[in-house]
Amino acid sequence: MNEELLGLIAGALTSVAMMPQLIKVLKEKNAEDISLVMLLILISGLSLWVWYGFIKDELPIILSNAFAVLVNITLLICCFIFKNKA
Amino acid sequence: MNEELLGLIAGALTSVAMMPQLIKVLKEKNAEDISLVMLLILISGLSLWVWYGFIKDELPIILSNAFAVLVNITLLICCFIFKNKA
Repeated sequence: MNEELLGLIAGALTSVAMMPQLIKVLKEKNAEDISLVMLLILISGLSLWVWYGFIKDELPIILSNAFAVLVNITLLICCFIFKNKA
Repeated sequence: MNEELLGLIAGALTSVAMMPQLIKVLKEKNAEDISLVMLLILISGLSLWVWYGFIKDELPIILSNAFAVLVNITLLICCFIFKNKA
């Protein structure tokens, strides 16, 4: 199997799997259950994966982790917006 | 920076970030909020990442995704145990 295709499928699956949380937070306008500290640790880790992907020059790793960074930064912004409203 | 070390740090951070959910489910003995379908998609994606890691022979990818598979299979088992109890 083409390894790049394998990585892209893997990245697509793990990306799809994190959408429900984002959708739930956006729909319910409630981010109380999300830990800010863990979100910051996660974003740091994912950013390092993107960096790793660039060093190794591996597109699947760059794409899937950059997408995950975007999703989690959106969650982070939601945490601030929705917590201030409560 | 050594790329393997970078990957291991990245993997450690993303691994730490998923522990609170596991701890919460185990503590509260409640897995109702977890979507079974998404968990199966996530486990499939993570398993493909492990496979990708083996093909590319990259230890950080194998280790962090194998650990994530373990955590999420534990969550999957919790889903079955705690849903049957309710």
